[in-house]
Amino acid sequence: MPIMPFSDALPDPLPVLARAVAGCSNHNSVGGVLFVHAIVLDVNFLYITETAARETLEQVMADALSKSGSNRSAVRAVCLAVSGVNHPTDQQRILTWLRDIFPTQVKLYVRNDAVAALASGTMGKLHGCVLIAGTGTIAYGFTEDGREARAAGAGPVLGDWGSGYGIAALALTAVIRAHDGRGPHTMLTSTILQTLGLSSADELIGWTYADPSWARIAALVPVVVSCAEAGDEVANKILKEAVQELALSVKAVVQRLGLCGADRKNSFPLVMVGGVLEANQRWDIGREVMDFISKDYPGAHPIRPKVEPAVGAALLALNEFMKECVQEAYRR
Amino acid sequence: MPIMPFSDALPDPLPVLARAVAGCSNHNSVGGVLFVHAIVLDVNFLYITETAARETLEQVMADALSKSGSNRSAVRAVCLAVSGVNHPTDQQRILTWLRDIFPTQVKLYVRNDAVAALASGTMGKLHGCVLIAGTGTIAYGFTEDGREARAAGAGPVLGDWGSGYGIAALALTAVIRAHDGRGPHTMLTSTILQTLGLSSADELIGWTYADPSWARIAALVPVVVSCAEAGDEVANKILKEAVQELALSVKAVVQRLGLCGADRKNSFPLVMVGGVLEANQRWDIGREVMDFISKDYPGAHPIRPKVEPAVGAALLALNEFMKECVQEAYRR
Repeated sequence: MPIMPFSDALPDPLPVLARAVAGCSNHNSVGGVLFVHAIVLDVNFLYITETAARETLEQVMADALSKSGSNRSAVRAVCLAVSGVNHPTDQQRILTWLRDIFPTQVKLYVRNDAVAALASGTMGKLHGCVLIAGTGTIAYGFTEDGREARAAGAGPVLGDWGSGYGIAALALTAVIRAHDGRGPHTMLTSTILQTLGLSSADELIGWTYADPSWARIAALVPVVVSCAEAGDEVANKILKEAVQELALSVKAVVQRLGLCGADRKNSFPLVMVGGVLEANQRWDIGREVMDFISKDYPGAHPIRPKVEPAVGAALLALNEFMKECVQEAYRR
Repeated sequence: MPIMPFSDALPDPLPVLARAVAGCSNHNSVGGVLFVHAIVLDVNFLYITETAARETLEQVMADALSKSGSNRSAVRAVCLAVSGVNHPTDQQRILTWLRDIFPTQVKLYVRNDAVAALASGTMGKLHGCVLIAGTGTIAYGFTEDGREARAAGAGPVLGDWGSGYGIAALALTAVIRAHDGRGPHTMLTSTILQTLGLSSADELIGWTYADPSWARIAALVPVVVSCAEAGDEVANKILKEAVQELALSVKAVVQRLGLCGADRKNSFPLVMVGGVLEANQRWDIGREVMDFISKDYPGAHPIRPKVEPAVGAALLALNEFMKECVQEAYRR
């Protein structure tokens, strides 16, 4: 199945005027990542993705505006796409921060970062489903009339099993189980120990708990893929189960929103984002997930975004801003 | 199958002269728990279980000795049973601390805390297998000629799936999956939300990551058991899988050590310790695990210790001390 952009309405390449990045990552806390990417798109819009502490937010916005040769007075709309934002109370708290920085006439939008990832593949239109599988995983969807649903995205303790962390933790577990005599021998043992510079499976325990970063564990996914490609059965089983988990998240969202229509054949965009889905190797997790989904929903239209999620947030703000302008014009 | 003590050689009740507890628990770090239980057993022995920071160690030992109306000069042997001690280097570090506190003639022993739990059921003799299932889980075994083996005990990231944490995390996951439309409806949803005082499954995510303590999650095991007893299929499946995981750990140890003999029928003690195995409810996880093991190893002799693991460490020190005395007497 070909992977192509869903909309070509906007200029290519997009007119990104400036970008700025600031902050530091806060281990594991959902909604606590402090990296801020500020993208200045076109002259009049400032868009930011990822959770930000208040000061980091101010700093990176000033930085991006300065790089774009612009200032606050030129900003028309800001979209902040924040991981872990699910409740109106989360949104309100962040809107309050933003409102302290920007004057009343600036439109402000705060959304879950998965929404920005969807927008990065649909040129800002909120319709269809996005599947993100990086360190974590989430599926998030919208109908054209504005209903939304999500699945997964609850972190590693709560069953994000197809995520990079989930895949790698199962691989580490397979090494321990083989060592204990609780599981079959696997090539993962020698490959992972060599990658980490460890001399025995016992040492994996110390390595695992020495640092609570989920991303550090998820970084082992390529090792699992290479073992699977070399024919290791344990690694293949882990990846096949991850494919099923990821497909299940998408199906749950599509089903709840009825994106596929009554006959299950309607067309809808399926945006695929994240390192786990981007692996350009023989064992292609993203392609396998797509094959699984296509069996049930032949209208699912896969999109690999050409732009980063931060630009998706920018497009989202642009779309929302334009919609509001049109509505206001009708009211007048 | 009756559950009875394996040995009646020692007086009942045991002559515990004093006990002291000190320290604070250090979330999640394997080997970082600072609770110290000091037990003074008989006049001449001081025994301590659990990992201890050096100062806590000194403080609690002084406290226990004072309570027993004794002092350092009366101590003949010390056994420190420490969670996470697996390598000779770990042992050596702690032995050095102890050696700074006690004079040369005092015998010092440092072991994994699972070894003390085994000794608590075998009256100090290192033979057979112990299965611990509390917040975490581990199986640890010894042959009479001193070979040892373990399985599991690698923490929640590395597949301790039958542990209290493992059971409860799967129950929380089942709630999220039902909410997402990725899994079947389950009674766990209403029961867990009510127990935690939450109003929606979405709020579980915040609750889960608000505190990294594994024990806080494991505390939900009784809720899972009650849902299983009320007939909930999801809860029953989680408990049945936990039973298989726990039995598998024991079987791996028994198999590697050949505790069951060539015909798989030899008798050996199987000590069962921890909250998950002690549940006196209709759904009795410990009994189910035992039934599973008995099918393969009819000689497995279940023991529920009457004394705590700290007393097991005491018995271990007594046994080792007496063995060394006998050996020294032969040498003279």
